[in-house]
Amino acid sequence: MNSKIQELISQLTLEEKAGLCSGLDFWHTKGIERLGIPSLMVTDGPHGLRKQKKDADHLGLHNSVPATCFPSAAGMAASWNRELIGKVGEALGKECQAEDVAVLLGPGANIKRSPLCGRNFEYFSEDPYLSSEMAANHIKGVQSQGVGTSLKHFAANNQEHRRMSVDAVIDERTLREIYLASFEGAVKQSQPWSVMCSYNQVNGEYASENAFLLTQVLRDEWGFEGFVVSDWGAVNERVKSLQAGLELEMPASAGIGDAKIVAAVKSGELSEETLNLAVERMLTFIFKAADSSKTDAVYDPAVHHVLARKAAHESMVLLKNEGDILPLRKQGKIAVIGEFAKNPRYQGGGSSHVNPTTLDDALEEMMNVTGDAAQISYSQGYKLDSDEIDEDLVREAKETAAKADVAVLFVGLPDRYESEGYDRTHMAIPANHHALIEAVGEVQSNLIVILSNGSPVEMPWIGKAKAVIEGYLGGQAFGGAAADLLFGLANPSGKLAETFPVKLSDNPSFLNFPGEGDKVAYKEGVFIGYRYYDTKEIEPLFPFGFGLSYTHFEYSNLRIDKSAIKDNETVTVQVSVKNTGNYAGKEIVQLYVRDVQSSVNRPQKELKGFQKIELQPGEQQTVTFVLDQRAFAYYNVQIGDWHVETGAFDILIGKSSRNIDLRTTIEVESTVTLPGTYTRNSLIGDLMANPLTVDKAKEFIGKFGFDALLGDNPDMLMAMMRYMPLRAMIGFGQGQYSEEMLAEDLNNLNAISERKVNVSTR
Amino acid sequence: MNSKIQELISQLTLEEKAGLCSGLDFWHTKGIERLGIPSLMVTDGPHGLRKQKKDADHLGLHNSVPATCFPSAAGMAASWNRELIGKVGEALGKECQAEDVAVLLGPGANIKRSPLCGRNFEYFSEDPYLSSEMAANHIKGVQSQGVGTSLKHFAANNQEHRRMSVDAVIDERTLREIYLASFEGAVKQSQPWSVMCSYNQVNGEYASENAFLLTQVLRDEWGFEGFVVSDWGAVNERVKSLQAGLELEMPASAGIGDAKIVAAVKSGELSEETLNLAVERMLTFIFKAADSSKTDAVYDPAVHHVLARKAAHESMVLLKNEGDILPLRKQGKIAVIGEFAKNPRYQGGGSSHVNPTTLDDALEEMMNVTGDAAQISYSQGYKLDSDEIDEDLVREAKETAAKADVAVLFVGLPDRYESEGYDRTHMAIPANHHALIEAVGEVQSNLIVILSNGSPVEMPWIGKAKAVIEGYLGGQAFGGAAADLLFGLANPSGKLAETFPVKLSDNPSFLNFPGEGDKVAYKEGVFIGYRYYDTKEIEPLFPFGFGLSYTHFEYSNLRIDKSAIKDNETVTVQVSVKNTGNYAGKEIVQLYVRDVQSSVNRPQKELKGFQKIELQPGEQQTVTFVLDQRAFAYYNVQIGDWHVETGAFDILIGKSSRNIDLRTTIEVESTVTLPGTYTRNSLIGDLMANPLTVDKAKEFIGKFGFDALLGDNPDMLMAMMRYMPLRAMIGFGQGQYSEEMLAEDLNNLNAISERKVNVSTR
Repeated sequence: MNSKIQELISQLTLEEKAGLCSGLDFWHTKGIERLGIPSLMVTDGPHGLRKQKKDADHLGLHNSVPATCFPSAAGMAASWNRELIGKVGEALGKECQAEDVAVLLGPGANIKRSPLCGRNFEYFSEDPYLSSEMAANHIKGVQSQGVGTSLKHFAANNQEHRRMSVDAVIDERTLREIYLASFEGAVKQSQPWSVMCSYNQVNGEYASENAFLLTQVLRDEWGFEGFVVSDWGAVNERVKSLQAGLELEMPASAGIGDAKIVAAVKSGELSEETLNLAVERMLTFIFKAADSSKTDAVYDPAVHHVLARKAAHESMVLLKNEGDILPLRKQGKIAVIGEFAKNPRYQGGGSSHVNPTTLDDALEEMMNVTGDAAQISYSQGYKLDSDEIDEDLVREAKETAAKADVAVLFVGLPDRYESEGYDRTHMAIPANHHALIEAVGEVQSNLIVILSNGSPVEMPWIGKAKAVIEGYLGGQAFGGAAADLLFGLANPSGKLAETFPVKLSDNPSFLNFPGEGDKVAYKEGVFIGYRYYDTKEIEPLFPFGFGLSYTHFEYSNLRIDKSAIKDNETVTVQVSVKNTGNYAGKEIVQLYVRDVQSSVNRPQKELKGFQKIELQPGEQQTVTFVLDQRAFAYYNVQIGDWHVETGAFDILIGKSSRNIDLRTTIEVESTVTLPGTYTRNSLIGDLMANPLTVDKAKEFIGKFGFDALLGDNPDMLMAMMRYMPLRAMIGFGQGQYSEEMLAEDLNNLNAISERKVNVSTR
Repeated sequence: MNSKIQELISQLTLEEKAGLCSGLDFWHTKGIERLGIPSLMVTDGPHGLRKQKKDADHLGLHNSVPATCFPSAAGMAASWNRELIGKVGEALGKECQAEDVAVLLGPGANIKRSPLCGRNFEYFSEDPYLSSEMAANHIKGVQSQGVGTSLKHFAANNQEHRRMSVDAVIDERTLREIYLASFEGAVKQSQPWSVMCSYNQVNGEYASENAFLLTQVLRDEWGFEGFVVSDWGAVNERVKSLQAGLELEMPASAGIGDAKIVAAVKSGELSEETLNLAVERMLTFIFKAADSSKTDAVYDPAVHHVLARKAAHESMVLLKNEGDILPLRKQGKIAVIGEFAKNPRYQGGGSSHVNPTTLDDALEEMMNVTGDAAQISYSQGYKLDSDEIDEDLVREAKETAAKADVAVLFVGLPDRYESEGYDRTHMAIPANHHALIEAVGEVQSNLIVILSNGSPVEMPWIGKAKAVIEGYLGGQAFGGAAADLLFGLANPSGKLAETFPVKLSDNPSFLNFPGEGDKVAYKEGVFIGYRYYDTKEIEPLFPFGFGLSYTHFEYSNLRIDKSAIKDNETVTVQVSVKNTGNYAGKEIVQLYVRDVQSSVNRPQKELKGFQKIELQPGEQQTVTFVLDQRAFAYYNVQIGDWHVETGAFDILIGKSSRNIDLRTTIEVESTVTLPGTYTRNSLIGDLMANPLTVDKAKEFIGKFGFDALLGDNPDMLMAMMRYMPLRAMIGFGQGQYSEEMLAEDLNNLNAISERKVNVSTR
């Protein structure tokens, strides 16, 4: 411990210590003037500052200072661009410095279990590796400016439905491989200044008082060095939460939480050392923040708007482009249809809602691009505040579209469809958006649909559209970025960070979302997202990792530097990628690993690497990946560690999870022997499978006359042998074999098979 | 207790008592001559006697006396004919009497969780209601002859893989609604003389020592009055199994089990009362069997063969009949192809393998039907002992088919594919059968495929066939019955008792079958079979309940005698069914119930009634169903009972699970109030949902100023309110609301909402 902090703690009263463990108000930590401990501001993010003005309501929802609204996480994840999200993070950090904000709350690394989760727009992906990479680089960017982040919502907060009471019941392997892994990579790579616990329960304990999550996993295993803050109102029992590892209760508890802490220390229920440790972590943060505060920081909103536009380019995904209808030529008659063209849907509702510094209008931006070269007409198409089909608006839209050479439709999910606080109940776009596509499609075959939404929608209308751009929630520069993509001023380079299923019932959580009462069982286990669709052989509408470009890329020459490794070694994988089209463009090269044979149920493939590269027409580059133990491992609950089973693994290089261009195989040998013991209910087949005990198995088979029978129906008899427990030998022995003889045999077998169990450390 | 038995028990030594609790040898109970207690024989079934000859091997697999081999359970279930399976049961009972067998082991009421289970041919259905109805009527038939049955394998023995060690992990609602319900109906309706426990573990306890299953559920709840016998070798610890309710260990344990019982009584570990109760049950059975034994019983194998042929007619399902190619005319050139036409696959492997009294040959039977009117040629097509494609046989088959007007192909799964002891790993027919269909299809478009198999297969070749008959394992008269159906001497009337998925990965258990190591988690829960395919909107190859006829049926005039009932009342449902075609035929009218809205996840529909009726052309009949509480209930684990939620239920009348012709709706009102209490983590929404506490919810919303905010983003704010726990009021109250005030409010709320909880008795 820093000696200054040590000194300070010794000067604090018990009440002051408790006081440092909760907020001053909705947005500030407490200061202690006499000791020079400042009060600091934290504020919502993650894709822009939501710093409340002084006269704000006490729930903290309205009236924030203007700030750059970048694309929300769902879009940023589609960029698969570590550098870009890092730059956005830097910009956010600068804005925080300018506004004197010490911590920007976010990013959110929760996994997208269901497309219905109302807060999916704030989360990155269905894949933990991609999610953690994006979160890590966001954090690095923000924190490079001396501003903290708060990685949230830890953990398993995958729905809004009953979010403050629901218990997420998840087996440990699934929790480790999917839901925690998304946080793990970010914590290990980028040390966020804080982690925010979630509202929900995880396996029967509130996240806010879950010592397994907040202490064992987060600190002891992952080495987290910051402080844990509660989601606003997530504290259930203050003393228990402090003991579990939650330092800061937010918002202010009106002294109630503090009083409970004081009373618990006095009664001996809570040790003062535990409180001191929490205070030490809070003070460490407070002085780090104070020291890195830049008093005269300013930022240029115009520069940040340009960055927001660049981010929006890469946040969109070109899903369909029949006959290369896109990019549009800057000429002819273009009908622009849909209220979203003028009033964009560019961010989600709830705590992340930003007051933008400026706001692009797609219609105007398209006109800016074409100038007088094209005639652009506009029609509203639908009203935003209702799902009802307005026949007049539809007729108008049809007329506008019929007169044009091409129609560009802006549709998607209105604000009220997606927000913090509640989940969707279906995946359809509003009836009036759907009807508009169908109606315009009747009169105009050159139809381009641009979607604004934070989470996948069903597209029963897709046959009507020649091109579809998934625009996600593109931030304040969405309109300009859309215009750039439409006319080819920018080349689409986003790929889906989540599967778009054909229909909701295809989703793996469908039968168990949002749960029954206050229990939601994650029965699909590790089979979420493409892990499920691939293994269950369900054709998605658009697969994970999919996205088109105006150019084309060819992959070749996949090579690995070793054909066999031990699990404590690494392998380098290289592949050549060439731009064979006519546009400069960016490609996201994806590496998946498949365990060819496993003793546990594993997905068909898992993402273990990706690189985004930019190539000029005709240019070729080599992309390099390095894979270590984790790329091949599953979480083994028996040994409580990641474990690689000896055997072959396929390395798959693809343009998407379903478009694997190149593959090779590597042998990985485990350096870990799993503990194993024989009991009276071990099977003869288990003895047969172990070279050290196979002789004993043969002895049993011979002893009880089974071998004489094998000739008759060998398949069945071998199966019966294989699945026969050793204790059954007693019955079949008809008096020649006893419990005592079995006990002796077991002793011998366990002696024979005993191994030094060498569990790898994390 | 019978005074004779009481008297006998008092005369038994401890060793004799223990001795009555295990077998004399592989197939007999022990007798005690001095007391006139006879030794009785039990023998494998269920679709025919497998009484071993004296020189049989000690595993009990070979050499049995001839007996009529009826269709196996998978086929009998496809008949949906309660009366028919009852008659088959009677015939089996007669054969037992003739062979001096006291108990015919079976039927098997295990649910078909996966099509891969090697023993599916011995089980009835994926639906517990259909399965229990078939089991009950089989039992009634056999027992009407004074011969006992042993309902097996209790419980959750849904795979052969590691069957003697695997632990089936199943949540209680699923266990009750699916896996136990299949046994429950049979036990309650027909009181089998015995129940056979399974090899596997259920939720961590071997079935053989599972007091929950063998005593609490089976005896205390269902009222089972017979004895429990172990599956052969299923006893793990003899004393624990006796305490759990397992009376008879089979086969003979060479005195080892008996000695353990004696020692345990002597040591006080086992009370002698427990042993006396087991002996009482054994003696009750022994004297009942002895009293009903008919010493000079004989049966006529020819009569039973006729019954077997009738049963085989109804055990087959006409799956496809393009252009009404069937029935065939008894003329022209008919090519019969496939070794199965001469050497039928007519039963499964393992303990149920019967030595038939005679065996039909389909080719010969077809010739018998047509006489000289048709020219029937034969070609082998494939060899039985290999999957390898024999090009010579294929060429020959093509030549034969090309010269004919129509080709009838006998294909399916050879013996080695399906047996007790191991599971399949895929759902394909052998490569040489598949290739034969494709090859013959190239030269002959009038292609009819007859399948012999005990469990669904994938049919990627189905486009080549104009007609497909699923023949199941049709017993010794399969060949004759096939000829009858082909030429219209009998009209197909079977319907599938299980879903045929397009591909294995569609199956609900796919991700969790056969488990990992010794654990198989039933994560699909109640969503098995059509309950899954319907709810997940997965198109099956052929749905549950599907089957064609040579005639047509029209349903009309669905009526219910009450539009609203209480859950302790019944409703009568009637529907008119008319044969509108030209053949006499039988129709299986199916009734499904759908809970329109439920607080738990329920399937789209569940089978709650069926009737099989026979109609002449033009004839109409009224079919009547009576539905009681159970038809609308789910198993509520909170109250440990079946529970109906007040609300609307759809009553669906269909020709199959996916062909619902008529529907109506009934309101059912619950007479049971569920217990419920408010805690500090109850939600404001929970208060709002209860009319008795809604005012308090409004008070909270008003008190903390939430209502003032509702105007701005009402959707989100209402959701936030709804999901807000009461304890959060303390924080939001900012000092105006305390833990003490909350505690008082909770007291009041619980007082307001308190209700007499009236849990219905079973």
